[in-house]
Amino acid sequence: MDKKISGKVINRLTLYHCILTDYLAQNIDVISSKQLAVLLKIDDSQVRKDISILNNSGKSNVGYIVRELKTSIEQTLGFEKNKKAFIVGAGNLGLALAKYDNFQNYGLNILMLFDNDKKKIGGMVNNKMILDIAKLPNLARKMGADIAILTVPRQFAQITADYLVQANIKYIWNFTPTVLSVPEDVQVWNENLMANFLQFTYNI
Amino acid sequence: MDKKISGKVINRLTLYHCILTDYLAQNIDVISSKQLAVLLKIDDSQVRKDISILNNSGKSNVGYIVRELKTSIEQTLGFEKNKKAFIVGAGNLGLALAKYDNFQNYGLNILMLFDNDKKKIGGMVNNKMILDIAKLPNLARKMGADIAILTVPRQFAQITADYLVQANIKYIWNFTPTVLSVPEDVQVWNENLMANFLQFTYNI
Repeated sequence: MDKKISGKVINRLTLYHCILTDYLAQNIDVISSKQLAVLLKIDDSQVRKDISILNNSGKSNVGYIVRELKTSIEQTLGFEKNKKAFIVGAGNLGLALAKYDNFQNYGLNILMLFDNDKKKIGGMVNNKMILDIAKLPNLARKMGADIAILTVPRQFAQITADYLVQANIKYIWNFTPTVLSVPEDVQVWNENLMANFLQFTYNI
Repeated sequence: MDKKISGKVINRLTLYHCILTDYLAQNIDVISSKQLAVLLKIDDSQVRKDISILNNSGKSNVGYIVRELKTSIEQTLGFEKNKKAFIVGAGNLGLALAKYDNFQNYGLNILMLFDNDKKKIGGMVNNKMILDIAKLPNLARKMGADIAILTVPRQFAQITADYLVQANIKYIWNFTPTVLSVPEDVQVWNENLMANFLQFTYNI
C-alpha cells in the first residue's frame, strides 16, 4: 500500500470482504453498493467512496463483480503478503488463536508458539509447535519473523515484551490488559476487547 | 453514563485503567498526566482532557491519586453494572473467552455457554455450564440476559443470529468473520480482529 488508508476505511473494507466471501460461497456474482450499505447500516455513498480508492475495474452496470471486488480489496490491503508471526503464551487465548485458520487468508502466518511452561513445551497445536521461549530470539532471526502475538498472563506482559524487544521483534499485537512500555521503533497494537465491549454496551 | 463519550475516549480510559491497575499492584499512589501520556505515546494535554470528563476529585499537587482515578473511570464507564451474557458456540474461541476471568472486573458476567454439539452439551468450563442452544430462549427470558457473544463457525453465524434475535437478544458481540443481518433494534459489534491486524501491520 502506497498511500495511507485510515483505520476506519480498513475496517469497512474487511467487512465488505466478509460479505463478498459469503456471496461467492452462495454463487452470487454481482453486488451493489446499496446491498453492501444496507448490511453495514451505512450510507451507500460511503461504500462507493471506500471502493473508489481501490484499483477495482470489476463494475458492471448493475453493480460490482463480486470476485473482482474481493480480489481488489485483498490486493489493496496486502492479504497476499506473508506476515510471519509467533504466538507468545500458550494459554487459553494463545491456543484458540493458534487454532483459528482464518488468519492465513489475510496473510497472517502463525509459525509457532512459545511458552516457559515445561508441561506445554514440546506440544503441538494445529500443526504448530510449542517451543521454549528461550529459543525465540534465535528462531526469530533465522525465520525472519518480527511479529509477536502476546497472550501471556498480565503480570508477565511487560517482562515478556522486554524480552521480545531484545529479540528484535518490531510488532507486538498485545492481547493482555496491560499498557506496554517499548522503544520508539516497536509498534504495539492493544487489542482492547473490554473497551470495545464497554463502547458497545454503553446504553445498557 | 448520561452524556455520550466517544469510542476513542472509552478506549483510552480503559488503557489508563490498565495502567492504574498495574500501579496499584506496585503500591504506587500517585500518577501524573505526563506519566500516562508517555506510556500511551500521546500528548499529556489529551490525557488531562480525557480525565476532565470524569467526576474525579482525586488530584494532589503532584498528580492524580491512583486509587481514586481508577474508581472514577470505573464509575464513568459503568464497570459496576452487571451485564449478563451468554457465549454462543463452545469452540476454541468460545471456551477461551469463557476462561478469561478479567471480563468480570468490567461488569461482563458470562452466565453460561450454548452449543448444538451433543458431545459438548453438559460439559463445564470455568464453572459455567455448556447447554443445548434449544434452551437459550427460555433461559434468556428467565435470567434477563440480552447479550450474546457469538463464536460459532462462520457458516452458522447468520442462522444463529436469527435464532438469537427471535430469543430477544438485543446485543450481539460478533467474533465471527461475517456481517450479520439483524433488525434495527438489535446492536451488533463486529470484533474485527483482522482489520486491526491489517491496520497495525500496514507498513510491513
